[in-house]
Amino acid sequence: MVDLKRRLAGEFLGSAFLVAAVVGSGIMASALTRDVGVALLANTIATGAILVVLITIFGPVSGAHFNPAISLVFALRGDLAWGDFRRYVAAQFAGAIAGVAAAHLMFGRAVFEVSQTARTGPAQWFSEGLAAFGLTLVILLGLRGERGAVAWLVGLYVSAGYWFTASTCFANPAVAAARSLTNSFAGVRPVDLPGFLLAELAGALVALAAASFIIGSRKAEA
Amino acid sequence: MVDLKRRLAGEFLGSAFLVAAVVGSGIMASALTRDVGVALLANTIATGAILVVLITIFGPVSGAHFNPAISLVFALRGDLAWGDFRRYVAAQFAGAIAGVAAAHLMFGRAVFEVSQTARTGPAQWFSEGLAAFGLTLVILLGLRGERGAVAWLVGLYVSAGYWFTASTCFANPAVAAARSLTNSFAGVRPVDLPGFLLAELAGALVALAAASFIIGSRKAEA
Amino acid sequence: MVDLKRRLAGEFLGSAFLVAAVVGSGIMASALTRDVGVALLANTIATGAILVVLITIFGPVSGAHFNPAISLVFALRGDLAWGDFRRYVAAQFAGAIAGVAAAHLMFGRAVFEVSQTARTGPAQWFSEGLAAFGLTLVILLGLRGERGAVAWLVGLYVSAGYWFTASTCFANPAVAAARSLTNSFAGVRPVDLPGFLLAELAGALVALAAASFIIGSRKAEA
Amino acid sequence: MVDLKRRLAGEFLGSAFLVAAVVGSGIMASALTRDVGVALLANTIATGAILVVLITIFGPVSGAHFNPAISLVFALRGDLAWGDFRRYVAAQFAGAIAGVAAAHLMFGRAVFEVSQTARTGPAQWFSEGLAAFGLTLVILLGLRGERGAVAWLVGLYVSAGYWFTASTCFANPAVAAARSLTNSFAGVRPVDLPGFLLAELAGALVALAAASFIIGSRKAEA
Repeated sequence: MVDLKRRLAGEFLGSAFLVAAVVGSGIMASALTRDVGVALLANTIATGAILVVLITIFGPVSGAHFNPAISLVFALRGDLAWGDFRRYVAAQFAGAIAGVAAAHLMFGRAVFEVSQTARTGPAQWFSEGLAAFGLTLVILLGLRGERGAVAWLVGLYVSAGYWFTASTCFANPAVAAARSLTNSFAGVRPVDLPGFLLAELAGALVALAAASFIIGSRKAEA
Repeated sequence: MVDLKRRLAGEFLGSAFLVAAVVGSGIMASALTRDVGVALLANTIATGAILVVLITIFGPVSGAHFNPAISLVFALRGDLAWGDFRRYVAAQFAGAIAGVAAAHLMFGRAVFEVSQTARTGPAQWFSEGLAAFGLTLVILLGLRGERGAVAWLVGLYVSAGYWFTASTCFANPAVAAARSLTNSFAGVRPVDLPGFLLAELAGALVALAAASFIIGSRKAEA
Repeated sequence: MVDLKRRLAGEFLGSAFLVAAVVGSGIMASALTRDVGVALLANTIATGAILVVLITIFGPVSGAHFNPAISLVFALRGDLAWGDFRRYVAAQFAGAIAGVAAAHLMFGRAVFEVSQTARTGPAQWFSEGLAAFGLTLVILLGLRGERGAVAWLVGLYVSAGYWFTASTCFANPAVAAARSLTNSFAGVRPVDLPGFLLAELAGALVALAAASFIIGSRKAEA
Repeated sequence: MVDLKRRLAGEFLGSAFLVAAVVGSGIMASALTRDVGVALLANTIATGAILVVLITIFGPVSGAHFNPAISLVFALRGDLAWGDFRRYVAAQFAGAIAGVAAAHLMFGRAVFEVSQTARTGPAQWFSEGLAAFGLTLVILLGLRGERGAVAWLVGLYVSAGYWFTASTCFANPAVAAARSLTNSFAGVRPVDLPGFLLAELAGALVALAAASFIIGSRKAEA
């Protein structure tokens, strides 16, 4: 077992690079093209690629959650001690916020901003709940497969989710909170955060139940 | 062996997420860009990525067919009991239709619509037959290789097929039927379904014969 | 060892699908966008993806050359009998030409056309020689690595080559010849073929020498 | 152990193809589209793809550094003899410069040019330092995982970095120097090189310390 401070360093660094990639690539894309479709393609490729990288390199260190909803699911399954859970969540929020600051400094913006991008209403909440449901299901079922496969699965799932969910698949309370601190392509208004966070947690918990049903009591069918 | 209700849950969920990704990403892309080439690129990436994910996570559960033509081929090969075949097909159609509804609800549209997109005529039928021929051949030959490789092969094949076939490679009767229920980027008129379905089944059956010839009577040449 | 008629079927089908993907995706892309950069991106994704698929599924059948220059290199290395070499090359040309016809029929065009796209001059020849040098080097060095890796390496190399070589990396005499039969995005004038073919063969032979130097007399350094 | 001249050939060829891909794809993209976002997407795909290929095929030959900052880190860790380090760096610079010449000749330009593209100032330096920090961390942590995985990790990391760093993630002193010799999409003014090089070295050294902390004294936690 890796000792706790190293695991927290993994969660912090991973969350920071993840958010820096999400926010930074959105800023770059908006600056280079007027075609919003092209901009979201660039945002998609940067986010999907960095997720595969970060989960692969930090997986053996901390489990590479980078996501309070996922840490909650693991704590509920007994795979993460509740004492560690609180520290994981703190490291994830701190890292995500540091990631926004890093992206802003690279692009010569203020350290933090307040997003003006509205993302609210039942369709958005349903979308975000479905996004988190899918992400959690992919992780829980994917962990039964080959070692290392989950990194690819998450990167690919989020790449698809950027396009097929109406909320562009935040699916992560720490990332959502951090994205309220940038008034750029990837932002979300602070006032819209509670709806997103509740939807994400609900989606993750339904996925935990669904995965238990699908996996059943047997270890592996393979 | 996974028990039947779990396998059917896998086919239902997989078909639903597949169609939600196909239809949802088409709606999103049309909203973000006027360049149809960019829209189809986005549609391609979302579909290819979700196929790799869904086949990887549901493969050990149900075989991850999500496709009546593929289930038919496996039934003909004796790899799927005929009694299970009927239930698989029902779960695939139900899942695919649920996927359209989910995509529409995420984007604030009516639950179902009627597509106005014409896709008919000999060139389209030939295209769709070739698409299904290739897909089936890829699966049957790919299954002889490394475990898990088929998920990538199908995702990549369909990504290419979105561009190199004139019919954009539906290659799946359940997905085709569901796509008649959306009047968006990925739709197809209900009246054009019979031609597509016959072409897909014909292509799959020719591929079954071609694969038998290529594989021969030996188990593996590797 | 797979018997010869099955191997030739593999070379024929693989070459046909490869060219159908190259030509078909070019036609589709030109129809959907006026941005030639977007069109080449689509062409790139379709070609790269289908190469990974075809080499993976036909590799255990025929070796998945689909390319007379590569078959020549394997014959010179003693990995392919000269009698088989002639039949491989015939199957590759026949398959490539059938692939053009299939793409044209899918898109409702004449079975064959004559390309008007000029690709000639020293810069193009140097480019095409370098493209074939790189492709051959990638294959010869890649074969020393993990089984199955070459499929990915070739798909990725050609994806890069579509952009970094001025000739868009045909790197294949059979594909080049077939592409002279389509007057669409992927075409090349028949009169320009000799220069391309000579450059491709020269690049492949130089790569054979370079690979021998790099590999040395030892089997593996790993 | 591969003998030194073969290792240097690997570093030279790999650095040359890497820079040819970076510069060549930039020239091609600028010629085909006016949308700078589309051009950078093409540049991204070509660079990411060729990195996976080159690191996979030259990894067993030379370690596939292609980067003086990475060679420095390995020398400091004791994984590369200091005498070899000097020769590696020379081969990397020579290869990178040859790559520019190759790209220019393919596209019918002068062998060398002087870039006019300004990339300077604290935000750019911070960006480039962060880019090199991330690249080095990815390599050092990635090497602890599955054999061959680093090639994919680097290709994906740089693909993301092209978008999320404001400096487009040169992260490589030899590549940066070579890019000052092209007045095309991928160029950088010679006068801006010192800032880039210092930032890259600083980022790499900080990553070496961070990786030591995260890895700790244990060999592997897996």
